[in-house]
Amino acid sequence: MKLTFKIALFPLFKERISMKQNLRRIQFAVMIVFMALSFAIASLTFVRTVSASGAADPLPSWKNGPGKQAILQFVQEVTDKSSPDYVPPADRIATFDNDGTLWSERPVYFQLLFAIDRVKALAPKHPEWKTKQPFKAVLDNDMKALWASGEKGLIELVMATHSGMTITEFESIVKEWIKTARHPRFNRSYTDLVFQPMLELLAYLREKGFKTYIISGGGIEFMRPWTERVYNIPPEQVVGSSIKTKFEMRNGRPVLVRLPEINFIDDKDGKPVGINQHIGRRPIAAFGNSDGDLQMLQWTAAGDGKRFMLLVHHTDNEREWAYDRKSHVGRLDKALDEAQRRGWTVVDMKKEWKVIYPFELK
Amino acid sequence: MKLTFKIALFPLFKERISMKQNLRRIQFAVMIVFMALSFAIASLTFVRTVSASGAADPLPSWKNGPGKQAILQFVQEVTDKSSPDYVPPADRIATFDNDGTLWSERPVYFQLLFAIDRVKALAPKHPEWKTKQPFKAVLDNDMKALWASGEKGLIELVMATHSGMTITEFESIVKEWIKTARHPRFNRSYTDLVFQPMLELLAYLREKGFKTYIISGGGIEFMRPWTERVYNIPPEQVVGSSIKTKFEMRNGRPVLVRLPEINFIDDKDGKPVGINQHIGRRPIAAFGNSDGDLQMLQWTAAGDGKRFMLLVHHTDNEREWAYDRKSHVGRLDKALDEAQRRGWTVVDMKKEWKVIYPFELK
Repeated sequence: MKLTFKIALFPLFKERISMKQNLRRIQFAVMIVFMALSFAIASLTFVRTVSASGAADPLPSWKNGPGKQAILQFVQEVTDKSSPDYVPPADRIATFDNDGTLWSERPVYFQLLFAIDRVKALAPKHPEWKTKQPFKAVLDNDMKALWASGEKGLIELVMATHSGMTITEFESIVKEWIKTARHPRFNRSYTDLVFQPMLELLAYLREKGFKTYIISGGGIEFMRPWTERVYNIPPEQVVGSSIKTKFEMRNGRPVLVRLPEINFIDDKDGKPVGINQHIGRRPIAAFGNSDGDLQMLQWTAAGDGKRFMLLVHHTDNEREWAYDRKSHVGRLDKALDEAQRRGWTVVDMKKEWKVIYPFELK
Repeated sequence: MKLTFKIALFPLFKERISMKQNLRRIQFAVMIVFMALSFAIASLTFVRTVSASGAADPLPSWKNGPGKQAILQFVQEVTDKSSPDYVPPADRIATFDNDGTLWSERPVYFQLLFAIDRVKALAPKHPEWKTKQPFKAVLDNDMKALWASGEKGLIELVMATHSGMTITEFESIVKEWIKTARHPRFNRSYTDLVFQPMLELLAYLREKGFKTYIISGGGIEFMRPWTERVYNIPPEQVVGSSIKTKFEMRNGRPVLVRLPEINFIDDKDGKPVGINQHIGRRPIAAFGNSDGDLQMLQWTAAGDGKRFMLLVHHTDNEREWAYDRKSHVGRLDKALDEAQRRGWTVVDMKKEWKVIYPFELK
């Protein structure tokens, strides 16, 4: 505006001219200033209007089904100052499960595939793994034997691959894997397999003053290296399972070393505990997809005022996977019953999502 | 600006007038528009300048000593985009100890005084406490015997008074105590005994794009009920020691019950662990007052780029207390040596703070 104004006034002071000419120039100058100002004011008004109304459709990858309607209605009710259900911004806490809610979790949780890749990478230094379960199963690509090793075997696998290094070293290992590893079905980065409709939902809630958190059974330090880039969720808003760490001085420099000892399991009845420990407020909206999220949704539902609970139901074997009550990954059984009984929102991926993954848009 | 502009143009279209008159009016109108624009541009520039320089003195309760100078210089260096030490806002994490750094900690940590009050309140339900240590010591007002019970005794005291209820019940108990309890020396609320210069520092850092966190050895659930009101620090930015909690269904409603079992001690080498667990980023500035903060400051100092480490040195027996190397509350010994050796900022409360508590301003 400053530049336009200078140009507009320029003719006034340039040379001695007749009064008539001068008048015409002044009129012209005023007109230019007026037009510039009108344009500036119009632009400002336009910007304000668009951002206030949420820029056209905030959830373009959602069909106009019950899920989308329920989300839009809830957000309207808690953000409209004249609504009886209005919630001030500081209390607009929304918590999201990760595996199966924000990205896929098949054939198995991606973090388990990371652990398997790590076992293979570390195997040359561990000749004993050739004959020792669950490592032998991994090296033989024998998933059946791996599952047979049970929870104990899986924990052993995680400890051997997730501990013994500093937190900084572990962060580098995760970043490198996330960059280079490819999903067996889609031959794409794991972070390509996030759900486009959920990315839109995260952005929409943040635009409406919500603070979005991840509350995952997965490892907190496995997620933090990429959640900011992929979900726009910073490390301090990521809660997950963890192993213990220890402060140590190494050559005069402090490090945090990852120990082979479980610190916290952020799953099932651990989720409300993790939420309270990290956030210290009860969410007003919670999003999950399995029985591991049931207690988080119950905890959210039990607060005062308007609440929103949503389950993503995996129903699309073509574009993603279809599973629920009998799956051993992301089983959705009790939580599905409770959702139906209590009127929580259950989103049918096949029917309600126009696209699943961001790459389908391109 | 819209209104001014309309007034300025008004004479142009009001009535038929001579060309000379018209010219004078146009000149007048252009002058008014020019003045209005100049004023608007000047105002904008002024607003920007003032907010960039932090509106007059951002730390009015700090004398112009080495502490204040060091703070202002550091903030300038990490927030000026043209500085080689510029840090983007997301990484501007500042962590503060609480006891002795943001509020007083004498005669003993205020949370211990809370526990003592709770023992007295609960004593009628526990006749066995009359003869059992450390409870007997508390009921007899025998502080010597209480200290003699050592760490084991203190933990027993905390467990008996901090567990056995839901988190919601405990929050109410803390809120009521904070509202009604009075400090023995000042006969004021404990939350009156926060340090005015540190309140200004917190506000100043936040204005400069920092996220301010509490990292305290004190109980996380003891602080959260009042830190937002007193320090403007929301519960999700409070990290502290904790006991375990358990998710339970009571009459169909979920509750989190506080268990008599330590979960995490957020002191000494626990502070970097707590910081990593909750924030997942390394602070660029850390503020403490005792050996319990040494590892937090070491952890902060060891990051890349510009760092700021500060210790509050309690030197004012008149207005507050004077203690350091030999104190059993808030001992400052090793950390003082390290600060001197490494050039960390040590603030002399007596010399550098114009006022200690907010009530001195009134």
